[in-house]
Amino acid sequence: MEKYYLFSPGPTPVPPNVLREMSRPIIHHRTPEFEEILCQAIDDLKYVFQTQNDVIIFASSGTGGMEAAVSNFLSKGDKAISVRGGKFGERWTEICENYGVDVENIDVEWGEAVDPQIIANILKNNNRIKAVFTQACETSTGVAHDIKTIGETVKSYPDTLMVVDAITALGVYDIPTDKWGLDVVITGSQKALMLPPGLAMVSVSKKAWEFYEKSDLPKFYFDLRKERDSLKEKQSAYTPAVSMIMGLKEALSDIKKEGLKKVFERHERLARATRAAMEAIGLELFAKDNPSNSVTAVKVPDGIDGSSITKILSKDYGITIAGGQSQAKGKIFRISHMGYVDAFDILMVVSAVEVVLKRLGYDVPLGKGVGAAQKFFIG
Amino acid sequence: MEKYYLFSPGPTPVPPNVLREMSRPIIHHRTPEFEEILCQAIDDLKYVFQTQNDVIIFASSGTGGMEAAVSNFLSKGDKAISVRGGKFGERWTEICENYGVDVENIDVEWGEAVDPQIIANILKNNNRIKAVFTQACETSTGVAHDIKTIGETVKSYPDTLMVVDAITALGVYDIPTDKWGLDVVITGSQKALMLPPGLAMVSVSKKAWEFYEKSDLPKFYFDLRKERDSLKEKQSAYTPAVSMIMGLKEALSDIKKEGLKKVFERHERLARATRAAMEAIGLELFAKDNPSNSVTAVKVPDGIDGSSITKILSKDYGITIAGGQSQAKGKIFRISHMGYVDAFDILMVVSAVEVVLKRLGYDVPLGKGVGAAQKFFIG
Repeated sequence: MEKYYLFSPGPTPVPPNVLREMSRPIIHHRTPEFEEILCQAIDDLKYVFQTQNDVIIFASSGTGGMEAAVSNFLSKGDKAISVRGGKFGERWTEICENYGVDVENIDVEWGEAVDPQIIANILKNNNRIKAVFTQACETSTGVAHDIKTIGETVKSYPDTLMVVDAITALGVYDIPTDKWGLDVVITGSQKALMLPPGLAMVSVSKKAWEFYEKSDLPKFYFDLRKERDSLKEKQSAYTPAVSMIMGLKEALSDIKKEGLKKVFERHERLARATRAAMEAIGLELFAKDNPSNSVTAVKVPDGIDGSSITKILSKDYGITIAGGQSQAKGKIFRISHMGYVDAFDILMVVSAVEVVLKRLGYDVPLGKGVGAAQKFFIG
Repeated sequence: MEKYYLFSPGPTPVPPNVLREMSRPIIHHRTPEFEEILCQAIDDLKYVFQTQNDVIIFASSGTGGMEAAVSNFLSKGDKAISVRGGKFGERWTEICENYGVDVENIDVEWGEAVDPQIIANILKNNNRIKAVFTQACETSTGVAHDIKTIGETVKSYPDTLMVVDAITALGVYDIPTDKWGLDVVITGSQKALMLPPGLAMVSVSKKAWEFYEKSDLPKFYFDLRKERDSLKEKQSAYTPAVSMIMGLKEALSDIKKEGLKKVFERHERLARATRAAMEAIGLELFAKDNPSNSVTAVKVPDGIDGSSITKILSKDYGITIAGGQSQAKGKIFRISHMGYVDAFDILMVVSAVEVVLKRLGYDVPLGKGVGAAQKFFIG
């Protein structure tokens, strides 16, 4: 007998009621029943995005949403900034290059947050930057960028769009799209929204729609305007992922019931408990500043083989956490606390990490990490 | 109390065991467990595609797969043929134009199949045609094009690809990808594969991979080579739609158990029964030639309001069939017999159509259509 526990930063655990909703008999999408589900999901997404902007759903991974944010608003040869502080920052650069966008990369050391002043300086000295592409949370490093400050800067440039990959941030901590003037915000289904992977969501500001009109890059499936126009008829442009959207409506209803404020507080508590636990057993966080409330990246202690931590957790205990990606491979492990996660999930994964480290010969004071985390859940 | 019956040509009904499989707790995709599921699904897809070519899965609607077939193999200014005999033929033209491909449209009257000789003539007189884009079954009209003959023609042109949208054909009737030399074949999850919408699959021949090398159109999310390279590592390039692929593996296993030959025979029997039933009650098929075994399109009889047929079926009896699209709106209705459908489903929908037509004042000899269909299910 082995239970299965999921602590990867996407996919995250899916609540049983959402799984159940997704396993209802399929219905046709050109029906009043489905139109109601779709419209409710869009409305509730606007609540989570904290926006009055249009929100579009694609059947795709989050990367599809990122691609849409490039191909819908820019033209060949346009200049753009990419904040490259991890694997997903690199993805912005790759997408831009793919479309012939002239990217200025801000290379941020993995584990650090971008200095918003660098972006401000580039924008001041170059009035031809059409977009700033960044992550809210860089999943590969567990670092949150200061979207509020960057957003405020970009807002004052009428010819520059602020584009945020909030795939591992939206629904975890406060990212008020409209208040901060974020033109394009992207998220995916398999993170804080507690669904399987398969949907990307993109919010589009009025300013961004003006950019759309001037964009000359080809787009078809990821054409945002076509989706916006279809939504006026309560439909998607192409066949939607019906069962996923049925699940989305259910998951969003849970988020609304809990309330965004409480959702953010819960994630903060889980994240702080996880960080405190890791530090209590002598481990170091990978994030030098701005550790994200979505996922905690922890340095593998000297003398321990990083890959064996994730392997033993998975093989012997049925627990999935994530290792490091690319340059961080073998050097860090990552514990997600996004979505359908509560205090006892965290105490469990912390205790499992203690056990495995002990087995690997690391001198762990057993229970010390758990104790440090428990303090966050009292009162 | 009202049951729900689904006869739309996508989504089609999903078997309970597939729904159940999709509602299992989500697992992480970078695990041996998921790698096994993905590889099994790919293997079984090759069985259904009848191919040794690479088969790629995208999280998207079928349209995403169609877009991939344009953006991965052609370059700006390339010439291509689009067989435009319905709404989905029009989609090939739109995608091509979107990418700056120079399309020569073969306009086929709705309800008719393309004459393969027309394609042969164009290819003979123009050696610069890079691809022929066509449907195997044009869902909007219920007509099957003669893919075998077209495929044989195109095969002899080394600089021309044969690209088939088989979204409502693959797994319904015999389309042997390798035998007929079809370079790129596309299908979607929500048709004969008996899954919810949300996945597109694309097979790619060696000849097509050579075209890939020369293509200059931008592609990122729908980059077929990136997916092929990831599959060598038993992975997808981006986060896959985990639960959908778990369902896919289950559905494909059912198809393999039944066996392709029997699957094709079943669909043919269901289609012939449906057509015979409609003609027995005095209705005319929309397909002038080559009626498809996927979906039967029927002309609305004079004096009857076409939209009221679908509306009453849905509102009063919980039965979803499809109306006509674009120029066929109000003029036809369409009954799908794809995927998880058996003889008694067909008898039921035929009897429901009889009842509704009677209610609308059409002189139906009640039971006559049912009787005509029953003959196909004896012995």
